[in-house]
Amino acid sequence: MANVQTLKGFRDFLPNEARKRDFVLNTLKKVFSLYGFEPLETPSLEYEEILTGKYGNESEKLMYKFEDKGKRKVALRYDQTVPLARVVTQYQNELPIPFKRFQIQNVWRADNTQKGRYREFLQVDADIVGVYSPLADVEIIMVALESAKKLGFKKPQIWINDKSIIDKLFKDKKSTSILDKLEKIGREPVIEELKNIGVDNAEMLLTQLEKSEPSDKLKEIFKILENEGYKKNEDFVFTPSLARGLDYYTSVIIEMKIPESPYLLSVGGGGRYDNLIGMFANRDIPAVGFSFGFDRLIEAMEELDLFPENFKVNDVFVAFSNSDLQEKALEITNELRSKNINAELYLEDATLEKQLKYADKKQIPYSLIVEENNLILKDMEKRTQENLTLEEIVRKLK
Amino acid sequence: MANVQTLKGFRDFLPNEARKRDFVLNTLKKVFSLYGFEPLETPSLEYEEILTGKYGNESEKLMYKFEDKGKRKVALRYDQTVPLARVVTQYQNELPIPFKRFQIQNVWRADNTQKGRYREFLQVDADIVGVYSPLADVEIIMVALESAKKLGFKKPQIWINDKSIIDKLFKDKKSTSILDKLEKIGREPVIEELKNIGVDNAEMLLTQLEKSEPSDKLKEIFKILENEGYKKNEDFVFTPSLARGLDYYTSVIIEMKIPESPYLLSVGGGGRYDNLIGMFANRDIPAVGFSFGFDRLIEAMEELDLFPENFKVNDVFVAFSNSDLQEKALEITNELRSKNINAELYLEDATLEKQLKYADKKQIPYSLIVEENNLILKDMEKRTQENLTLEEIVRKLK
Repeated sequence: MANVQTLKGFRDFLPNEARKRDFVLNTLKKVFSLYGFEPLETPSLEYEEILTGKYGNESEKLMYKFEDKGKRKVALRYDQTVPLARVVTQYQNELPIPFKRFQIQNVWRADNTQKGRYREFLQVDADIVGVYSPLADVEIIMVALESAKKLGFKKPQIWINDKSIIDKLFKDKKSTSILDKLEKIGREPVIEELKNIGVDNAEMLLTQLEKSEPSDKLKEIFKILENEGYKKNEDFVFTPSLARGLDYYTSVIIEMKIPESPYLLSVGGGGRYDNLIGMFANRDIPAVGFSFGFDRLIEAMEELDLFPENFKVNDVFVAFSNSDLQEKALEITNELRSKNINAELYLEDATLEKQLKYADKKQIPYSLIVEENNLILKDMEKRTQENLTLEEIVRKLK
Repeated sequence: MANVQTLKGFRDFLPNEARKRDFVLNTLKKVFSLYGFEPLETPSLEYEEILTGKYGNESEKLMYKFEDKGKRKVALRYDQTVPLARVVTQYQNELPIPFKRFQIQNVWRADNTQKGRYREFLQVDADIVGVYSPLADVEIIMVALESAKKLGFKKPQIWINDKSIIDKLFKDKKSTSILDKLEKIGREPVIEELKNIGVDNAEMLLTQLEKSEPSDKLKEIFKILENEGYKKNEDFVFTPSLARGLDYYTSVIIEMKIPESPYLLSVGGGGRYDNLIGMFANRDIPAVGFSFGFDRLIEAMEELDLFPENFKVNDVFVAFSNSDLQEKALEITNELRSKNINAELYLEDATLEKQLKYADKKQIPYSLIVEENNLILKDMEKRTQENLTLEEIVRKLK
């Protein structure tokens, strides 16, 4: 057997990491449900012709495509928006419209594996299908902000713009993806790049863009947000130069920033895309959505230390002081489990020292040492211990 | 655009179905954690040579294999046991042994798509790596039984055998997979098939098998289980003819039956496999595990009506009696959400009738109708309604 390793751009998540992911997912699902979004799952593999519907050649190059054993041309899920479009068409007679769904599944992209970019990663999408009203845009902004707050971010911020503001000034479609780099590469290089594609008065246009007023649509959204207690320039910030690379947005575009993070991390984005969901149904179906970058979220939470303490471990490790007591220890372990306490017992015969070393390696906060006539609860960090009854131990661990 | 559909053997899970799956998963994760199992995730795609390590040609034929853009031979996850073996080798310096992990991810198999068999399906595995002691077998049996009970099954039953009992009587390895069909096709056809592969005294051997006594190992397991309050012939049943098809089990084999289900459904199985996990490390590493058939679990729970009522819906739908009240309705919706009540509002302008029709279609149990000076709570099933304050409504919905 050659190399025992994973493919470039693919990751194992060992327990500590997997637990963090689960914590974030459960939190997000809870908030999405509060806002009336419902779960949807679609297959990992689909007909290639379904998945390639939307994209230009650039993106299609990144798709994992192959021929299956039945000679069907298939591809791995590239995003969750095209599958949503398919679902909305395929089940149009059963699905209630408006359809508010969240979807949290892996996508695969054969991209360059730079720092922080992977070939398999989780996407977290919440979308509202079938509503033109700005109330839908507002709900998307609210669910994004509240999700981030629930995860522990103190001041998540939505940067918001209307694509029509950019389109009015910049006629060449390629300008958008250049403007999208503004924050990253800065003003001068962007002006340079714009000039290179033939935008002669780039500097003037950019200045004009930065001074633009919100569109009527944005004004309406801001008004509702303020009525609901969200503060302008705090919770949401009108950012006329915000571009976002993707072609398919039709008006409102948003991005979530974490101002408290060192690099003003962006942890997600979205907007309104009224021409995409109807692609299989051959009619216009409005939609607005938001997508969290799951890896970015975890990264930001780690940087800001937002994960609960002692989060990665079992509640208690049950140790036996001699081999004859192993079964008694199992009984006690089960007793603790029946009280909803995550408990683990060393399953081989072993010295107490070896058992406690294992508990230490797993960073389990407490060890319960079962002796002939005593139960000893040991605080593994403080290295203190006390004789207690099982009842007292249960109360302490809860 | 040709056919807007999914591939054969692949499924969409619309909200009602997706919610059920989530409910089952959360329950299982909770019980696994109580028993000290920790989550693990591995990539969907791996080097083909890693994944094909274990299997005979039969299974390999079912693998989704292809060449990626970098000309690497890759394959989609076929099960979670080989990836576990890779992880145990790759991270041997970090992972605490014993390693108790659960893993809940999709696997892909290009199998015939008969009734109830899919090409993409969720596997739910719990395994203990690194322990020879029968205590590990006991923990696997306990976590399987307790998981099933937590899901609502009244009398889940573990059928249990030791492969050595079969091996003593049947020398030809092919016998195992024939004996595995005993329950399905019956005694006579099994004897016939055994004769066909050259087992002349098949009937006598089968009778002898059925009368066999438990092995010493099983006796020890039974003793511990009984000490822990599990009853022989109720919670666990010694079944000397239990074979299980897979070659890799080395001694104990188990299967979970649901006696209360009409067809004595089997919802999972497992056993001890001491020669597999060390395949990449080139040394023996003992292991014992259990795997739930996730689709079978859902099937059995549906048959026995174990899902909570009103499980598939939002708590409340907030309707506005005229358009001017839509924003007030949004305020109330947000107020309910802040009290942890899943609430949805109709986002387009619409008549009250249209709004309530939508709530009906989604089977939301209550509608809160916002009028100029009143709040009306309507029970959507009983078709009764009453004037209440927001406080009263919150109390009622909680």
